[in-house]
Amino acid sequence: MSIKIGIIGFGTVGSGTVKILFENQALIKKRLGCPLVVKKIAVRDLSLPRRIAVPEGLLTTDVEAIIKDPEIKIVVELIGGIEPARTYILKALEAGKHVVTANKAVLAEHGRELFAAAAERGVDIAFEAAVGGGVPIIKTLKESLAGNRILSLVGIVNGTCNYILTRMTEEGLAFETVLKEAQEAGFAEADPSLDIEGWDAAHKLAILASLAYGTEVPLDRIYVEGIRDIEPLDLSFARELGFVTKLLAICRETGEGLEVRVHPALIREDHVLSSVRMAYNAFYIRGDAVGDILLYGLGAGQMPTGSAVVSDIVDLARNVLAGASGRVPPLSYQMAALSSQPLKPMEDVVCRYYFRFSAIDRPGVLSKIAGVLGEKGISIAAVIQKGREEKGSVPIVMLTHEAREAAVREALARIDHLDIVTAPTKILRIEEG
Amino acid sequence: MSIKIGIIGFGTVGSGTVKILFENQALIKKRLGCPLVVKKIAVRDLSLPRRIAVPEGLLTTDVEAIIKDPEIKIVVELIGGIEPARTYILKALEAGKHVVTANKAVLAEHGRELFAAAAERGVDIAFEAAVGGGVPIIKTLKESLAGNRILSLVGIVNGTCNYILTRMTEEGLAFETVLKEAQEAGFAEADPSLDIEGWDAAHKLAILASLAYGTEVPLDRIYVEGIRDIEPLDLSFARELGFVTKLLAICRETGEGLEVRVHPALIREDHVLSSVRMAYNAFYIRGDAVGDILLYGLGAGQMPTGSAVVSDIVDLARNVLAGASGRVPPLSYQMAALSSQPLKPMEDVVCRYYFRFSAIDRPGVLSKIAGVLGEKGISIAAVIQKGREEKGSVPIVMLTHEAREAAVREALARIDHLDIVTAPTKILRIEEG
Repeated sequence: MSIKIGIIGFGTVGSGTVKILFENQALIKKRLGCPLVVKKIAVRDLSLPRRIAVPEGLLTTDVEAIIKDPEIKIVVELIGGIEPARTYILKALEAGKHVVTANKAVLAEHGRELFAAAAERGVDIAFEAAVGGGVPIIKTLKESLAGNRILSLVGIVNGTCNYILTRMTEEGLAFETVLKEAQEAGFAEADPSLDIEGWDAAHKLAILASLAYGTEVPLDRIYVEGIRDIEPLDLSFARELGFVTKLLAICRETGEGLEVRVHPALIREDHVLSSVRMAYNAFYIRGDAVGDILLYGLGAGQMPTGSAVVSDIVDLARNVLAGASGRVPPLSYQMAALSSQPLKPMEDVVCRYYFRFSAIDRPGVLSKIAGVLGEKGISIAAVIQKGREEKGSVPIVMLTHEAREAAVREALARIDHLDIVTAPTKILRIEEG
Repeated sequence: MSIKIGIIGFGTVGSGTVKILFENQALIKKRLGCPLVVKKIAVRDLSLPRRIAVPEGLLTTDVEAIIKDPEIKIVVELIGGIEPARTYILKALEAGKHVVTANKAVLAEHGRELFAAAAERGVDIAFEAAVGGGVPIIKTLKESLAGNRILSLVGIVNGTCNYILTRMTEEGLAFETVLKEAQEAGFAEADPSLDIEGWDAAHKLAILASLAYGTEVPLDRIYVEGIRDIEPLDLSFARELGFVTKLLAICRETGEGLEVRVHPALIREDHVLSSVRMAYNAFYIRGDAVGDILLYGLGAGQMPTGSAVVSDIVDLARNVLAGASGRVPPLSYQMAALSSQPLKPMEDVVCRYYFRFSAIDRPGVLSKIAGVLGEKGISIAAVIQKGREEKGSVPIVMLTHEAREAAVREALARIDHLDIVTAPTKILRIEEG
């Protein structure tokens, strides 16, 4: 008795997955009770060099041969992107295969369709590797917190952004400098826009929010702001005020709908999320019963992501052996219980803010700015004004008490048009966690 | 269709469990697909006041009535201690019930017997709540790391000890002062010896090591040292050297057998475990594939522990609905694959050490002490000697490079007999994590 699997895609994650399945074969058998056998790996080009050696005949260019192989019970999709990944997954599900995927984009954009197809055919689809690499965030939301109402989830979900912000904060380097170094070292993609503009985080947040709240979260309803415009000066002021700056993915239940947003934010330096440095990811979850828990680890990379793929394969293999497919629904909620919950517009979000105004160094400036904030009902919690004049203007930094985003936007639109203000105001939200 | 459960024990954890099952009933049904119904709760005395109101007729003093009720599929044991808990669990398993327990003591001491009984009867036994409260450490080891060889696990697993050490470190308070306050506030037990002498941590470590390595770890083979003798002076020296002191439960695979030990230890202040303060627990796991991951949260308390119990109930209910009991073996390894791995004697453990010698303030003292260390092959990495003479002696603090425990013991036995040494040397191990 053995369970045969077919893998589509043999890049970074595919290689890691196969490496683990080969090297830890005996160990996995001790846990699962029977061997997991890789029967076929589909690649685009047989002639390319491979990161790890595989027995002759294992590689194929024929994806259909995997999907139609009656011996293969589990198909693992690791090519990424929307198409042809979506089509392959659908075909595999329709052919009665259980599917493991690491593909956050296809899940965020076509999750409903894929989950419905799996349910209809009575097979499983698992995706632990799609979010947080080897960190078991998906299983934790689906299973370990099954008794909890999730009050909020605050995640550091993009390793590239966290790496860049960590080095900018600790070494005072400029964004472009760190990005270039990260690209040269292979940590950041040649085209880093998905990461640094926040869309990778938004894909992951769409999946996490769906799991936590049993609701569909369309990508275009997520407020997304990246880290491209972050300046070392703001990271340094934030530290002076006792905060560390992170790109956060946040979902939170409120009386006025779900907040679902991705943006850089200040967190208090004694918060455990502040100690998440470099390429590490972390998920800070507040449940009504469990209180606050944190999961932390490497959110990307060949082996951590491969670890998550293998855990999914073992999970589905256990279902195959027990005849228990569909045991846990893909989004934790039963398909029939999925609902469409209202999302809170960004304008209605209430939080504390960090502002850095650039103003002419002249008496009365502070009072004018504070006056506009006061008119909009925004009250000030702290101010730093230091005479570091540069090109005829000085930075004035303020922390506010809680304020509504709409009021903040209105106030800043007015302030940025004052003749004493020399550049658009920098704004960062504060996350209390 | 519903799944009926019986609960034995209605103290702190029992109340939390029932509260969650009642308050989040609709939510749990959305996830599970059918209602979870509490049919009976066994208590010792019906006349006692209860923390939460339950419908009339739910409480009983008749445990047998729960165990023999053919409608009840899942029995939840929450009375703690060895007997009668062990007998109730065995009887429930023999009656074909799935069992959820939060009882680390009975698992650490009688786990083999209970798991064998469950396997024989083809039913499940789940125990997420036995370690780490609401933190999903058990499921992570059993399922999410199924593809990993676990290289090491370092845990802060006892909230009372971590609370005491945190306040001693941050406020410079004495052990007895904090313990007394914690007892008055209800954080620490009236008899705190299980916690502060490290045995609660050892129970948990026995379970975690079994899960990680598929081996039995008898309690009496675990090296255990508590925190009763920790002095604020050492915590303060440790901080000066860049370390934070925690009670750690450690298991680690080495070429010479498994290390399994509980003792206070210094960890570098920039290590993520250092940010685990007060009553929080954390588990730092290194896997060969996943790299380093951390799980963090409240390790005790009514609601966090109740959260773990409910997640186990949902898990077993999903097995009942899918007809999939035995899907995951209780220790993650198949029963037949459990082995008896050699444990490394404490004398052979190699690590770095912190020593605080108490010596007469006289020339040549340092050279005598260093001389003995040198003879035993122990090399010194750092020394602090400051003239804080007290009762005729000064503290001399040393950090060593890696040394073997046996050599350290021999050296200290000699040093403590030198006529220049006025009190037994304080020793703390350093965990590099």
